[in-house]
Amino acid sequence: MAETDQALPPSDQLAAMNLTDTVEKHAFSNRVLIRSIVGRPDGGAGLAGQRVRAGGWVKTGREQGKGTFAFLELNDGSCPANLQVIVDAGLAVLSKLVATGTCVVVDGILKVPPEGTRQKIELRVEKVVSVGEVDPAKYPIPKTKLTLEFLRDHLHLRARTNTIAAIARIRNALAFATHSFFQEHNFLYVHTPILTTSDCEGAGEMFQVTTLISESEKLEKELIKNPPPSEVDIEAARQVVSERGEAVKQLKAAKASKSEITASVAELNKAKENLSKLEERSKLKPGIPKKDGKIDYTQDFFARQAFLTVSGQLQVETYACAVSNVYTFGPTFRAEHSHTSRHLAEFWMVEPEIAFADLQDDMNCAEAYVKYMCNWLLDKCLDDMQFMAKSYDKGCIDRLRMVASIPFVRISYTEAVELLEEAVKGGKKFENEVKWGIDLASEHERYLTEVKFQKPVIVYNYPKGIKAFYMRLNDDLKTVAAMDVLVPKVGELIGGSQREERYEVIRERILEVGLPLEPYEWYLDLRRYGTVKHCGFGLGFERMILFATGIENIRDVIPFPRYPGRADL
Amino acid sequence: MAETDQALPPSDQLAAMNLTDTVEKHAFSNRVLIRSIVGRPDGGAGLAGQRVRAGGWVKTGREQGKGTFAFLELNDGSCPANLQVIVDAGLAVLSKLVATGTCVVVDGILKVPPEGTRQKIELRVEKVVSVGEVDPAKYPIPKTKLTLEFLRDHLHLRARTNTIAAIARIRNALAFATHSFFQEHNFLYVHTPILTTSDCEGAGEMFQVTTLISESEKLEKELIKNPPPSEVDIEAARQVVSERGEAVKQLKAAKASKSEITASVAELNKAKENLSKLEERSKLKPGIPKKDGKIDYTQDFFARQAFLTVSGQLQVETYACAVSNVYTFGPTFRAEHSHTSRHLAEFWMVEPEIAFADLQDDMNCAEAYVKYMCNWLLDKCLDDMQFMAKSYDKGCIDRLRMVASIPFVRISYTEAVELLEEAVKGGKKFENEVKWGIDLASEHERYLTEVKFQKPVIVYNYPKGIKAFYMRLNDDLKTVAAMDVLVPKVGELIGGSQREERYEVIRERILEVGLPLEPYEWYLDLRRYGTVKHCGFGLGFERMILFATGIENIRDVIPFPRYPGRADL
Repeated sequence: MAETDQALPPSDQLAAMNLTDTVEKHAFSNRVLIRSIVGRPDGGAGLAGQRVRAGGWVKTGREQGKGTFAFLELNDGSCPANLQVIVDAGLAVLSKLVATGTCVVVDGILKVPPEGTRQKIELRVEKVVSVGEVDPAKYPIPKTKLTLEFLRDHLHLRARTNTIAAIARIRNALAFATHSFFQEHNFLYVHTPILTTSDCEGAGEMFQVTTLISESEKLEKELIKNPPPSEVDIEAARQVVSERGEAVKQLKAAKASKSEITASVAELNKAKENLSKLEERSKLKPGIPKKDGKIDYTQDFFARQAFLTVSGQLQVETYACAVSNVYTFGPTFRAEHSHTSRHLAEFWMVEPEIAFADLQDDMNCAEAYVKYMCNWLLDKCLDDMQFMAKSYDKGCIDRLRMVASIPFVRISYTEAVELLEEAVKGGKKFENEVKWGIDLASEHERYLTEVKFQKPVIVYNYPKGIKAFYMRLNDDLKTVAAMDVLVPKVGELIGGSQREERYEVIRERILEVGLPLEPYEWYLDLRRYGTVKHCGFGLGFERMILFATGIENIRDVIPFPRYPGRADL
Repeated sequence: MAETDQALPPSDQLAAMNLTDTVEKHAFSNRVLIRSIVGRPDGGAGLAGQRVRAGGWVKTGREQGKGTFAFLELNDGSCPANLQVIVDAGLAVLSKLVATGTCVVVDGILKVPPEGTRQKIELRVEKVVSVGEVDPAKYPIPKTKLTLEFLRDHLHLRARTNTIAAIARIRNALAFATHSFFQEHNFLYVHTPILTTSDCEGAGEMFQVTTLISESEKLEKELIKNPPPSEVDIEAARQVVSERGEAVKQLKAAKASKSEITASVAELNKAKENLSKLEERSKLKPGIPKKDGKIDYTQDFFARQAFLTVSGQLQVETYACAVSNVYTFGPTFRAEHSHTSRHLAEFWMVEPEIAFADLQDDMNCAEAYVKYMCNWLLDKCLDDMQFMAKSYDKGCIDRLRMVASIPFVRISYTEAVELLEEAVKGGKKFENEVKWGIDLASEHERYLTEVKFQKPVIVYNYPKGIKAFYMRLNDDLKTVAAMDVLVPKVGELIGGSQREERYEVIRERILEVGLPLEPYEWYLDLRRYGTVKHCGFGLGFERMILFATGIENIRDVIPFPRYPGRADL
């Protein structure tokens, strides 16, 4: 106890540190939140003397003092730091505690360790409450340096590693920062649909959603179990109907009693019913239903072809044009066969849409949102960011600070092309040719943000030929009010535009790009009735995490990555 | 001006009301937030004299004073209340402003209207900035009483109605309340996958996701354009190869020059290449690829059958068993052909998962979460709740207050069945038989929560035979540690359980219910290595909105409802 008292700083010093001297519990569980101990500015020292229950997984453990006690580094996922735990041999079989991955719950007293140790606090165990053992010979992710690639083959266990847990906390922080930002600015969160029948720009890259295959497989099985009736069966049933019909006729002719006739008619009806059932069943054919040689989608679940959404923008516009400021944040899908470190088949997008606002407002919103997320991470995830800086990307914290504080450069597409052409003249080599009218390639974008300006750049007013039909046509009739936000490390982070709100113009644009009008009638209605100037953008959420953490492969920043050939779990 | 000054309450009174006397702007737009005027406790009176720009849609408009001015009720979606706007005929063609649905942006000065009017403030327009017109003869949702059913056929415009806009704000509030609750309690938000290959409990109710159909349709088109080679084509190509081979042979035999031979070999190789291309193409067959009579899913996007998730629980458990407290909040899917007012094919679920916690903790968490949402609505959405109370469900505010304040009743399943049996003895009629072992039907659940207790009821410890394999087996070996939260108006709102953390027991349970082990090996790994006591639950997000608002049909509380035969937009 003396040791404890000695370790406590004087109370005025404690007050100055603004510490709460009670340990925070994990909600709905009676164990302590390890972050509330080791995450304190004093490293937990001010809590010495307190009795707590701690639960977590052993990161590293070792027996010491010839097996008289064990050190465990315990982590509960609440922060990157571990709680050092000391267990005496009398309390448990130490060899069952020390394997990496072991889950332990222990009661003990917090003590200040001897001078000269790294920890500011440790837990002396008084009771081992429970143990979830690990056989280290079989554990798929032992404590050795595992590559991120290896971990992708063990999705169900990889969150137990420091890296994936830190990414999970950063991802969580960015998600809540997103909601907080838009809620603070009076945007409504709108759940746009995942299933869509708006096959907007050609189904090429869309996943199809159907019940036709499973229904046809079910039917196939059923028909094997209960073969459909043969022509002979049906003929026999027809025979029965005609016999029963004859019987009724005869009874009527013979002026039989009412009850006799009724009974006979009932028999006839039963036979007719049986016949029609058989005829119905004889029509059942295995395989996907077809009509005129094509798949008959009227028999699919939604009575038409359905797909997974590639963007919630068009749908969320219906809410922007009704309740002003909205955003959607949800999964989107691309059935692209690309095996790069930048593409996923399933990824999350944030798409705000602002009514009564133009491209300038759009850029202001995008810049404010990105800065807000950077500040949020610096504020609430500094320990995880320090881990990323130490392990993956030395510059990631400086990058967040820079983006949070420096105004984004804003240049027109035309200016951007001029700058790139100048660079080419100066000897810079690009794989893709630079000239007005091209879509900027990733190498161009990264040159602008990483080399030329070394800060975020917003490029606006793109040639209409390379952009979508819904972007607002500028007065020069050559460019549209589009904008992309480029940031160091990932290039394009955000793409957005002011939307074309003029009915005649957008109708013309749809026809110009060769799309049919009919599927867009509902979208045109937004311009037909009470049209409003509006704009919006999309941020690829995983790109933002790559930008923040410096992680190279997008498959490592989403819990369950989906890409060609892989959709584990 | 005199009128304005007169209307302002004395400054001490204002201070006591704790009002800010500047008008709040919509973020990233230079118009005012209408809620910040009409939503003030003083109805906006304290803002008289301020010049503002307002934008929104006309709810009702009428010309007055023989066409010398017009009244517009303007709504911008920020709250249910409108801002009254007065426009003089000199400023615009009034007939173009008054139609319901018209979008207007106006500059003006806030004034206190004459005594005796309902409004506490109105906007006298000085300039009409822009107008998005509506032809009232064509507008699909004019200002008449429209049924919710009718509005379902106009999804893209229905958010412009008071009801759907109020629901959108309530839904938004509940979503942010959900995030706030779990973040405050140190849960990490984990994005579980939408696409899954874990075909868990039989694919019966799952949507299949595939690119096989679109790929085969693409191929079909391509083959029509470029028909595959015929046997004759291939034979001809074969002939060329053999001729070229012969030529090489002869040149070699004739000891021709090296360059001659090389050229000849090159010709031969070209011919071989052409042949193999033709042979490859001749194998292309229209239709979905099959192998041994079955669909060849190795050719599908993920190289196996993939589905839309029905729950993120199993996947989120992998994170709970690594970082302790987590939740997922995302869309889930059921391909059920049910046409009820309680089912959707696409709906949102909230699924927390807590490590180091048991069924009691689970119930505590569920109760705290539901209470938190009720308080949030009372706190932040009272105006919308008042609208719902007035228009749809008189008792909805009282219900929120009751649920927020009263401890939930907790009874075991066995007790629940006894209470139901007593009710039957007392003369209560149920359609479904009551006896120990049945799954409680909706009528039973509603009897317990609406009639017997008239408050939320948690029923726990259900017979294992009616519950999923992953629920923890109780010591009686007959029941599992499951719990359902029942609330008035909707019945079951939450279903949850403590999960079986004992490897041998869960393995046994999987086999007992007739499932194969192999697809669950990853799930078993969580119990094999560092297993931890844990629990969780699922809340149907739309059910919560039904409960809160008293709306009857679930299709009206999600922006884009998907159900059999319908997936508009």
